[in-house]
Amino acid sequence: MAKTKKQPRPKAETPKGFRDYFGAEVTQRNDMLQAIAEVYQRYGFDALESSAVETVEALGKFLPDVDRPNEGVFAWQEDEADWLALRYDLTAPLARVFAQHRNDLPTPYRRFAMGPVWRNEKPGPGRFRQFYQCDADTVGSASMAADAEICAMLSDTLEAVGIARGDYVVRINNRKVLNGVMEVAGVLDPSDPDKFAHERGIVLRAIDKLDRLGTDGVRALLGTGRKDASGDFTDGAGLGDEQAAIIMGFMEARRNTGAETVDRLRDLVTGSTIGAQGVNELEQIAGLLAAQGYGPDRIIIDPSVVRGLGYYTGPVYEAELTFEIFDEKGRKRQFGSVAGGGRYDDLVKRFTGQEVPATGISIGVDRLLAALREKGRINAVEHGPVVVTVMDRDRMADYQAMVAELRNAGIRAEVYLGNPKNFGNQLKYADRRNSPVAIIEGGDEKERGVVQIKDLILGAQIAENATLEEWKERPSQFEVARDQMLDKVCEILATHDIGQS
Amino acid sequence: MAKTKKQPRPKAETPKGFRDYFGAEVTQRNDMLQAIAEVYQRYGFDALESSAVETVEALGKFLPDVDRPNEGVFAWQEDEADWLALRYDLTAPLARVFAQHRNDLPTPYRRFAMGPVWRNEKPGPGRFRQFYQCDADTVGSASMAADAEICAMLSDTLEAVGIARGDYVVRINNRKVLNGVMEVAGVLDPSDPDKFAHERGIVLRAIDKLDRLGTDGVRALLGTGRKDASGDFTDGAGLGDEQAAIIMGFMEARRNTGAETVDRLRDLVTGSTIGAQGVNELEQIAGLLAAQGYGPDRIIIDPSVVRGLGYYTGPVYEAELTFEIFDEKGRKRQFGSVAGGGRYDDLVKRFTGQEVPATGISIGVDRLLAALREKGRINAVEHGPVVVTVMDRDRMADYQAMVAELRNAGIRAEVYLGNPKNFGNQLKYADRRNSPVAIIEGGDEKERGVVQIKDLILGAQIAENATLEEWKERPSQFEVARDQMLDKVCEILATHDIGQS
Repeated sequence: MAKTKKQPRPKAETPKGFRDYFGAEVTQRNDMLQAIAEVYQRYGFDALESSAVETVEALGKFLPDVDRPNEGVFAWQEDEADWLALRYDLTAPLARVFAQHRNDLPTPYRRFAMGPVWRNEKPGPGRFRQFYQCDADTVGSASMAADAEICAMLSDTLEAVGIARGDYVVRINNRKVLNGVMEVAGVLDPSDPDKFAHERGIVLRAIDKLDRLGTDGVRALLGTGRKDASGDFTDGAGLGDEQAAIIMGFMEARRNTGAETVDRLRDLVTGSTIGAQGVNELEQIAGLLAAQGYGPDRIIIDPSVVRGLGYYTGPVYEAELTFEIFDEKGRKRQFGSVAGGGRYDDLVKRFTGQEVPATGISIGVDRLLAALREKGRINAVEHGPVVVTVMDRDRMADYQAMVAELRNAGIRAEVYLGNPKNFGNQLKYADRRNSPVAIIEGGDEKERGVVQIKDLILGAQIAENATLEEWKERPSQFEVARDQMLDKVCEILATHDIGQS
Repeated sequence: MAKTKKQPRPKAETPKGFRDYFGAEVTQRNDMLQAIAEVYQRYGFDALESSAVETVEALGKFLPDVDRPNEGVFAWQEDEADWLALRYDLTAPLARVFAQHRNDLPTPYRRFAMGPVWRNEKPGPGRFRQFYQCDADTVGSASMAADAEICAMLSDTLEAVGIARGDYVVRINNRKVLNGVMEVAGVLDPSDPDKFAHERGIVLRAIDKLDRLGTDGVRALLGTGRKDASGDFTDGAGLGDEQAAIIMGFMEARRNTGAETVDRLRDLVTGSTIGAQGVNELEQIAGLLAAQGYGPDRIIIDPSVVRGLGYYTGPVYEAELTFEIFDEKGRKRQFGSVAGGGRYDDLVKRFTGQEVPATGISIGVDRLLAALREKGRINAVEHGPVVVTVMDRDRMADYQAMVAELRNAGIRAEVYLGNPKNFGNQLKYADRRNSPVAIIEGGDEKERGVVQIKDLILGAQIAENATLEEWKERPSQFEVARDQMLDKVCEILATHDIGQS
């Protein structure tokens, strides 16, 4: 019985956590990637497209916040050979590429990369297991000029994709400064780096929550701990008042200008070698940016930025959109971070044993697209093609000739290719395609040498809003001579601001 | 002992059969994909980007020429759940997408898709396990107008990416015509489709080898078999003289015009219902294309096209580049096929049980790029950025300001970010980047308000070819006032035909 059992039909579904992208979702992302690539190129960065598949050995356990190798990664074993995996970011492959090709690549190597990455994580609402990253990194330069340049480029990039100046800010901090502050506060001992690691972890997480908890909440976490609204208690770092005051002072060290903030930070880390080094680095970056005219309207030194700080070894930066949106609960909030990066000097060492300094940025393209849609700067819906309807299926060649005429003029156009029997279906199709114009040429029109042109956008507006008088006065269907078809279609598209290619 | 053994360093290597793409390889492919997308869009096709990962169940065993499910595919099992796999083409995912979203998608659904696909096959020279496909398909239309349109679009696309008219031809055939011919020749029995399947397989493969074996070789394979130059013997289909003559007549049925070829084919399939149907389809396609002005300089009916024929149910088409190149052994040969497709009507049925007609094309983007490079229509090497050298590391801000000035004028430019101590390394870097221009501003220049501008392309030309006199007459280094820097750089770039963005 089992043998003859009929195979059930396969389910037509993406795997859990994956999704498909349609039409404007695809083209708008491509347009954005291209706009970003143009800026990256102008800054001297070269394109790199590494393979999506890497050996697990080469990927290593670089994935932040994941301890076990392979965890968080889609991996499989080749026949009795290597384990392979899909890349989970574009930085680990960069390390492999640079180590593999270092004799052929220029040093410093500036590269940009854009493409999907995969994470084997529990999917959630709006949380997908395949998404785009868009990175630029400079490998092999220890100069702070490399970091300054990445920040300037990030600012230029945001403006190039349509974020107005004033709607974003690039914040810069330095991990060494935070370490210096920790040293002054007595929770970091340079001679014993592992000591107080637990306390430092709590401090880091507390600073990271400043936005959400406010200064009182952070202060509580630095001390004995904090009870939240639900009554849950979070352990604190156990810092004394004086220690906590130093940390709080650091978070609030931002002043009006980069130079003033740097001065303030220098005071705070007095006595710490690593802290002084970090402050000098920030000072260099601030100086280079000021010389190029990137003022605090675009890039600021902000000690409260700690996101991802544990991963980096020097300067860190983050781009935030500062305009407000409404969240899913209808509350106003800032849009938040769309890009982040920093300096990470251990990248290539695991392959070659040599330390290679590197710094770079990753832009969250999908979040940036969402932001532009929120602001109405791009439409989520794009217009479909002009649809030439089929009134007489024996005259398909006539209709194809119409469509060829429109396409040759750069107009997106097509003949209806479904079963033409039911004319209503053809107009429903045009509607579903979001078509701006439909063209009709039945036997009668053919005989008289004319075509009917329906302005579907105007038609929809009239159907929705107009009174009977207006409806009579503003016809949305026009009869024109066949040889006037192209002109009339161009005229209608122009009134609706629809471009031709 | 084993416990304390040091972990060996990971190998910095792509997995076997995978590779990385650098610089111009990436940007030129992107440019080509964009040019293709523009044509597809103008024809009314919508972008689709499906997930790279599918369930093995949804992919099925669609991969041509592979019997076992999973074979040829990279697959892995989710924790005690579905098997997942990387897509091996863009057609199987289209079937899944259409079945999954059919209530929300317009019908017919015209979509294009471009992106990497993965094949778990033995890699070989020039044969990679990840490569790009670029497809356009119309799902839900049984009309021959859909097939004609795909062929016209393919022709337009080839010209849009830089293949001149006359350097390519789109050939069209129809599987039903071949079946009709087989029926007439007595190797297909409509009442028992499985009968003679073995013989038909040999006939198909023989026709497919016409280019390589010539008519005599094919004729031998239709009969008793063929011994090749090495003495190996290939079994023939065992057709009698009369049967073989019918097949040979089919292969050679091409006439000067589509209409004449159609007439000839109609003669050949006299008595076969399926054959007559196929000829009618070809006739419709030929009529539609002629009405739109696609003559035999672009698209021809060619009965000798059988590639992939076993996979399709009606019209098949193939685009070939007709210019000659030299193969790896230095022999002249035609470049050959760069795109192929056809009608396949069983696509969605395995998900929904409903037959959905579909037709489409796949362009081999990497082969097309190789062809354009062969013809010298695109350069494999692109120019790097203008490099501003660092003579005085304390004046990094000055150098960054220079670079900002160049970038703001749309010029690709960067400051040297490596260790500036050795100036020779800076020029070596510029050389490795293929930079057109290097800029030098030492303390002396700064004092005098000038910069040195080196034309590196001219310098290389002079170094290679010039006599001493010419070398003196044609300096490749220029001293200009600092505020003339931008003008001079623009002038040099213009002489080398290097564009600005």
